Amino acid sequence: MAERETRGEDALIQATFAPLASGFSGAFGLKDDCALLTPPSGMDLVLTTDAVAEGVHFFPDDAARDIAWKALAVNVSDLVAKGARPLAYLLGLSFPDRPDDAWLADFQAGLAEAQAAFGLSLAGGDTDRRPGPLSISITAIGTVPQGKFVQRATARSGDLLFLSGTLGGSSLGLLLRRDAAWAVAMGLDEAAVRALVSRYLCPQPKLALAPVISAFASAAMDISDGLVKDCGRLARASGLSAHIEGALVPLSEPVRAAVARSPDLFERVLTGGDDYEVLAAVPPERAVAFREAAAKSGVAVAEVGRLSDGQGVTVTGRDGRALDVMRGGWDHFPP
Amino acid sequence: MAERETRGEDALIQATFAPLASGFSGAFGLKDDCALLTPPSGMDLVLTTDAVAEGVHFFPDDAARDIAWKALAVNVSDLVAKGARPLAYLLGLSFPDRPDDAWLADFQAGLAEAQAAFGLSLAGGDTDRRPGPLSISITAIGTVPQGKFVQRATARSGDLLFLSGTLGGSSLGLLLRRDAAWAVAMGLDEAAVRALVSRYLCPQPKLALAPVISAFASAAMDISDGLVKDCGRLARASGLSAHIEGALVPLSEPVRAAVARSPDLFERVLTGGDDYEVLAAVPPERAVAFREAAAKSGVAVAEVGRLSDGQGVTVTGRDGRALDVMRGGWDHFPP
Repeated sequence: MAERETRGEDALIQATFAPLASGFSGAFGLKDDCALLTPPSGMDLVLTTDAVAEGVHFFPDDAARDIAWKALAVNVSDLVAKGARPLAYLLGLSFPDRPDDAWLADFQAGLAEAQAAFGLSLAGGDTDRRPGPLSISITAIGTVPQGKFVQRATARSGDLLFLSGTLGGSSLGLLLRRDAAWAVAMGLDEAAVRALVSRYLCPQPKLALAPVISAFASAAMDISDGLVKDCGRLARASGLSAHIEGALVPLSEPVRAAVARSPDLFERVLTGGDDYEVLAAVPPERAVAFREAAAKSGVAVAEVGRLSDGQGVTVTGRDGRALDVMRGGWDHFPP
Repeated sequence: MAERETRGEDALIQATFAPLASGFSGAFGLKDDCALLTPPSGMDLVLTTDAVAEGVHFFPDDAARDIAWKALAVNVSDLVAKGARPLAYLLGLSFPDRPDDAWLADFQAGLAEAQAAFGLSLAGGDTDRRPGPLSISITAIGTVPQGKFVQRATARSGDLLFLSGTLGGSSLGLLLRRDAAWAVAMGLDEAAVRALVSRYLCPQPKLALAPVISAFASAAMDISDGLVKDCGRLARASGLSAHIEGALVPLSEPVRAAVARSPDLFERVLTGGDDYEVLAAVPPERAVAFREAAAKSGVAVAEVGRLSDGQGVTVTGRDGRALDVMRGGWDHFPP
């Protein structure tokens, strides 16, 4: 047996992934089967797992760098909405064939960028080869001060619903990624197209908002399957009804322009997935302090609705009239 | 929107998987995006992730119950070899189509059995639909007293190599699973065939050995890609060479019978994967105490070799002559 494996599975792991684990001593340079994590004193751990697969969550010809970023971002988004700070992640990769070195280098660069941006480190993983789409399965671990985890099911009647950032950029970005010609029909210029597609390819979890969520929200979750569907989940888990005021939902400039040209798109804005913003339920008496703390964190938040007794979700459009968007949202196993 | 979703993704999760999470309060009934884990005081956490996919790690017509068991067992095996006690796991599932209810019920039963046997609970997960093989991706979390994690890279020259249980049952079980007629050629009776196939389908991690490993081993790992290959990994990580005495490698009765009939099979025993036994490096002065503690735990261990200065792995056959099995072992990306 050679002194060092220079090819094969172990070599692939050492060349491409071990450098990403150098900041985490419990990763043992990815030469062990397990990672060791000494929990920081006074902190709870927050765990989430999300996979992305070629042809489902990303396109086969997306840049490896973007695929890597998104795989990590969708997990970090879950942590942020619970008030947690990212700490480490485990990476499960399935390739139909050995990827070429250029692809791997680009993928590594995307993970490195995302790690630096989100403040977490690779701790361990698993790589195999199998038929089917390239898939990237991530388990992310974050920390939150003991007792400060923000659940989905703990909203109270009367809480205001706040949304971070802007909505709909990602679902319009997906339309453009599928059909570049659609930009012309919508009168979108090159900068607008770039902004929307980038919103879809490279979501930006609102890390700075995590401590604000933890301090002020009675319940929160990230919006990944569309605002209406995810808001319904938060309301149902809390045993409440929700109302969303479409006119209050913040839109980025290109989304606003597209909706102005084609008002029917607004329904897609409300139900399209992949936004990765935070939806937070905040008691009215804390709303001013929440807004101020969010502003200080540099993350825009907007009041978009309210929770009440009862059940179900109602939505009004930008004109104030009731909208019927109840069946919207992404479902892997549609009824 | 209905009061409760009775179909679709959320309903699938609630019906099939939420009952498996009822023992873990931080799972929030699988109604949250994240799991909350308050680390037990004085303990380090051990994390591992391993995926199994149809057509690679199991056969399409394997029982759902066995598939579930194996997916969990291969992860628990990693924890055990580090001296850790299983605590919780996250489950990532990818289905090409919605599985039927009978399959899901059987799969749930297999997870429930494995959870009970291994002492851990479902804490969270992710389910999606995508083309390609059914795949099950697990991240398992265990606990070990602070500072008691057993690494792979910390063996010392002169350490004895111990192996738990018996070797080769799984790789012969795989041969039988592929070709039942082979049993006749090998003169194996029905009970022997059942034992070998079961060894392949339902590996039994040696949980009771974990505290013994933690107390006495200077290094350890589980054997999943074949003894020779995994022993090479342990030796290389520790900067040492290893020698394995084939005559000392413990075989179950059916494996012994098959090897007696067809001596060439012994190479497969040494290099075949899926055994999920523990390989431990133990300093000679601790060997007696290690053996005694293992015996008390009810897990058989056998001395199979030794670590020395230098590099590489040498193996002698059952007749004491050098064997050339250096290229053995499973590799997803063979050189």
